[in-house]
Amino acid sequence: MDYSYKLNFKVRDYECDIQGVVNNSVYQNYLEHTRHEYLLESGIDFADLAKKNINLVVVRAELDYKFPLRSGEKFWVGLNLHRPSKVRFEFSQDIYRDLDEKLILSAKITGTSINERGRPFIPDEIANLFSI
Amino acid sequence: MDYSYKLNFKVRDYECDIQGVVNNSVYQNYLEHTRHEYLLESGIDFADLAKKNINLVVVRAELDYKFPLRSGEKFWVGLNLHRPSKVRFEFSQDIYRDLDEKLILSAKITGTSINERGRPFIPDEIANLFSI
Amino acid sequence: MDYSYKLNFKVRDYECDIQGVVNNSVYQNYLEHTRHEYLLESGIDFADLAKKNINLVVVRAELDYKFPLRSGEKFWVGLNLHRPSKVRFEFSQDIYRDLDEKLILSAKITGTSINERGRPFIPDEIANLFSI
Amino acid sequence: MDYSYKLNFKVRDYECDIQGVVNNSVYQNYLEHTRHEYLLESGIDFADLAKKNINLVVVRAELDYKFPLRSGEKFWVGLNLHRPSKVRFEFSQDIYRDLDEKLILSAKITGTSINERGRPFIPDEIANLFSI
Repeated sequence: MDYSYKLNFKVRDYECDIQGVVNNSVYQNYLEHTRHEYLLESGIDFADLAKKNINLVVVRAELDYKFPLRSGEKFWVGLNLHRPSKVRFEFSQDIYRDLDEKLILSAKITGTSINERGRPFIPDEIANLFSI
Repeated sequence: MDYSYKLNFKVRDYECDIQGVVNNSVYQNYLEHTRHEYLLESGIDFADLAKKNINLVVVRAELDYKFPLRSGEKFWVGLNLHRPSKVRFEFSQDIYRDLDEKLILSAKITGTSINERGRPFIPDEIANLFSI
Repeated sequence: MDYSYKLNFKVRDYECDIQGVVNNSVYQNYLEHTRHEYLLESGIDFADLAKKNINLVVVRAELDYKFPLRSGEKFWVGLNLHRPSKVRFEFSQDIYRDLDEKLILSAKITGTSINERGRPFIPDEIANLFSI
Repeated sequence: MDYSYKLNFKVRDYECDIQGVVNNSVYQNYLEHTRHEYLLESGIDFADLAKKNINLVVVRAELDYKFPLRSGEKFWVGLNLHRPSKVRFEFSQDIYRDLDEKLILSAKITGTSINERGRPFIPDEIANLFSI
């Protein structure tokens, strides 16, 4: 599969739980960090927007856990972005283990951008993501 | 809505992020802790099973983020359990804010139980969950 | 030992790591949450202060790890507050397991309060903590 | 200062809290990951040892917080290892921001290695760390 953005990671021991594998919630950290790095490269700074009270928020997450990551394993997250409606953006994100390109997790994260009153508000930087 | 199990929580400041709200991944921690407490009350100890190489694993998570929790807010997680097939169990889990019973998050978590060879394996304790 | 404030907790499975015990960093979460709850009861809201650009910050942490906590264990954190200088406050914090009152961790956390320019600044609410 | 090991990092947004800076507890994650990577390069696998019931444990942590890290900042952790006694090892670990080599945190982490009965036990791999 082709991805418009890829980011490399390595499992850190504190991310693993009693079962000796990466805890389920930690994959959301990996996915979030990848989205933010992708946005940053596209000129959108999540932290800066938050300071201006423009908040990029996740409204829905679907995560299919295929195979667990273990201590020390290297992996990468691939990302594609779609825009199903004017105020929604949808990230397809997959995680693969470096060693054998095994699919670890497949996710669809739907988000929007809201202003300080909680209303959908798409700043130009984000609108421009899709004009390319 | 009726739930077969409820658990009370309070947001801790370290769970909140730059946006001043609970980070998206942390809700999975709340949901997991609620499932494990529910299972424990039903005689199933997640940690003990892990030691015996029987691992309860999540295969799919669907999370609808309705409204964010903030510093210090009290909330509760409601849980219902279904069994769509012999080897799958499905948790419906909703999070409500204490203050006004506002719906914060609605989730469906699908899991299974696997043995050390990664094969589906439903121990009696878990099978019995559904025989009541 | 006498404490001016105590808070009860229970270990959550996601807080445990590969070794099957609570990860070292998580104790700092427990300690921070206890400090913030103590401050809140004393009329000081950490999150509110942060919004006003008054930041309570830790400048030094000393943690003696005596014995590990495990999945599902109940414990409590005891806290005492001292003020070694006008602009410093020092929390003595100990963690005990409920079961047998075993000492789990003993910590000394030194903090200060700074304004948006990073200068020490002790708001009245905090100064008043010590006037009682 | 000279370090026998260095590791590069970048702050991830989920590691930052309400104050917009990296949460105090997260620095312990950075320090732990650096120690484990250092040990791994020296032939010592923390996760493997844990499986054999040999646990490397921290007995004391001293952390001096000098200056906070913020969203997106790159930094590195430098490490030196000393052996104050036969059964204790002591890591000096400092964190510096890439941008200007500003000292962010200075830590001393004292650890030991214990067997399944909780007794100090230094495996050959670890003893050998100091024989070079």
